Amino acid sequence: MRSTIGWQADSATRTLRRTVLERRDLRADDIAVRVEYCGVCHTDLHALRAHGGGADGALVPGHEFTGVVVEVGDAVSGFSPGDPVAVGNIVDSCGECRMCQVGQENFCRAFPTLTYGGTDRQDGRTTLGGYSREYVVRAAFAYPLPEGLDAAGAAPLLCAGVTVWEPLRALGVGPGSAVAVAGLGGLGHLAVKMASALGATTSVLSRTPDKVGEARGLGAREFVVTTDAARMEAVRDRFDVVIDTISAPHDLAPYLRVVAMDGTLSHLGHLGPVTVETMDLLAGRKKLSSAGSGGRPSTADMLRFCAAHGITADIELLPSSQVNQALERLERNDVRYRFVLDMSDLD
Amino acid sequence: MRSTIGWQADSATRTLRRTVLERRDLRADDIAVRVEYCGVCHTDLHALRAHGGGADGALVPGHEFTGVVVEVGDAVSGFSPGDPVAVGNIVDSCGECRMCQVGQENFCRAFPTLTYGGTDRQDGRTTLGGYSREYVVRAAFAYPLPEGLDAAGAAPLLCAGVTVWEPLRALGVGPGSAVAVAGLGGLGHLAVKMASALGATTSVLSRTPDKVGEARGLGAREFVVTTDAARMEAVRDRFDVVIDTISAPHDLAPYLRVVAMDGTLSHLGHLGPVTVETMDLLAGRKKLSSAGSGGRPSTADMLRFCAAHGITADIELLPSSQVNQALERLERNDVRYRFVLDMSDLD
Repeated sequence: MRSTIGWQADSATRTLRRTVLERRDLRADDIAVRVEYCGVCHTDLHALRAHGGGADGALVPGHEFTGVVVEVGDAVSGFSPGDPVAVGNIVDSCGECRMCQVGQENFCRAFPTLTYGGTDRQDGRTTLGGYSREYVVRAAFAYPLPEGLDAAGAAPLLCAGVTVWEPLRALGVGPGSAVAVAGLGGLGHLAVKMASALGATTSVLSRTPDKVGEARGLGAREFVVTTDAARMEAVRDRFDVVIDTISAPHDLAPYLRVVAMDGTLSHLGHLGPVTVETMDLLAGRKKLSSAGSGGRPSTADMLRFCAAHGITADIELLPSSQVNQALERLERNDVRYRFVLDMSDLD
Repeated sequence: MRSTIGWQADSATRTLRRTVLERRDLRADDIAVRVEYCGVCHTDLHALRAHGGGADGALVPGHEFTGVVVEVGDAVSGFSPGDPVAVGNIVDSCGECRMCQVGQENFCRAFPTLTYGGTDRQDGRTTLGGYSREYVVRAAFAYPLPEGLDAAGAAPLLCAGVTVWEPLRALGVGPGSAVAVAGLGGLGHLAVKMASALGATTSVLSRTPDKVGEARGLGAREFVVTTDAARMEAVRDRFDVVIDTISAPHDLAPYLRVVAMDGTLSHLGHLGPVTVETMDLLAGRKKLSSAGSGGRPSTADMLRFCAAHGITADIELLPSSQVNQALERLERNDVRYRFVLDMSDLD
């Protein structure tokens, strides 16, 4: 076993404490990554909330990180020590199901191995995440970090970025598309940047009028305050694609109403059960969809696209020792737009 | 005013009685149609159920009919007396909204005028439907009945047919598509015929194992009994498009499960509010949609396509005097696949 330092949840208090962690010895197809930067994702908050009372207490969050390869297994050919590298929220999958075969390992029918809180497919141990100085991962689930991308700002691309990227691509967003992004947070701000870079005319739908300047700075042409009924009526049936990044349960009807005929409302992430009035879909043959995470090919594509267009997340970089404050502020939505932890203080 | 004979609801008993009806005198852009055949649609049943206690009792169902032009208004150029003609479930719309402007009058944002139970946009009177010997309609909402289409079997194309046709076209069904049709009734049997004629590989999902022979006769390559869990699992993630024609409220989850990645479950008609688990959408970026009725351009396209491919509904033709028995049998699903009323007994 290898050892490293990381931030592990204390199930009694749900705060993270600096702890020595074990990492597996490298298998032939593994690489060891020195984690430099790890994004703080909403999922991390959910995991911590759900964690109270867990059996072994082995929760180390973090599933969007960048770093440097420090060691490679005997069978690894694509990486060498010193290579900049990125890892997202899945680290293995069955490789055999229909989804894996088309490169959508995020939808693996045998369930993908999550970067933390998952179960390793070989040793059965719980995976521990990227809030740590070192991570050992199958090389097939690590991505070269393209030159020119800031490693700190790139970390959130590995979860937030690809979660936004996959539906934009799957829904054919490009020049001529009218895209609206609901919610201007970690996911939303990347959706605005990516949709705009893809050539779409991008609008932001937000409850918060004072975000108008930021929205325009990110590339949005239009800003619609969702509590303004007249403005919402004015954009009825307007957008080919609405990317809904609002994580709390909410009524989808107002967002369906602004979707254009044959267009799609794509909600990102897991909302649980949602109820829609079929007439809101029928009257315009609108579609409701959902997306989250990404497969390996689209993750690699997304990184190349972001490098070519200079897209990274707008972040607030904190030393990893401030992880608990970051989580508290995230819970209050006091972040623009993503916290990233600098792991160098773990040395 | 003109007078004709039709079948009007008695709101006390909800049975239809033969009655003299008034039709408006022809406006400049109207035609008068001698109704020959009128299909019996599920909507007619719903309207009758909802009708008890209505104010004026003026319910005459019927919104998919074929006939012959008997008179044309002064400004009508596209039709002449003697022309075979077809009328569907909408007879007017605002003509100005975004939906009307793209030829989707069925989604008119000022609401289309329904063929029966609607409110005429000029005189404010309640429209009376096609269970009658004559109908007066704006020529713009009547369609030439293409040569070679049996007029009785074609009547259901005007509602059931176009309701199926629009989503098949909007979802790009063609050679290479894998389409499943859930429910093998009035809509479903036309969906199988049309999808197959469009070049798709078509399957039927049904609770009723004894429909396998019929399904194959209609063009289905495969028949999946939905209560057979192993068979349903075998077709998981398989179909690019699932056309769900089941009219009663039901769980959509099993039908979402068999949709392929980036595919669509399209429910036809108005189900009311439906609840779906977002994870069932997310795990495959699947889409839920809904469709119903059709705009003018697609109705005309559909009729041309059906004439070219010899597609009409499989019907049971009854004299219109048996309309109440037809409705009773429809309520028990005792019909393969659509009742059509022969109006010649109203002379």
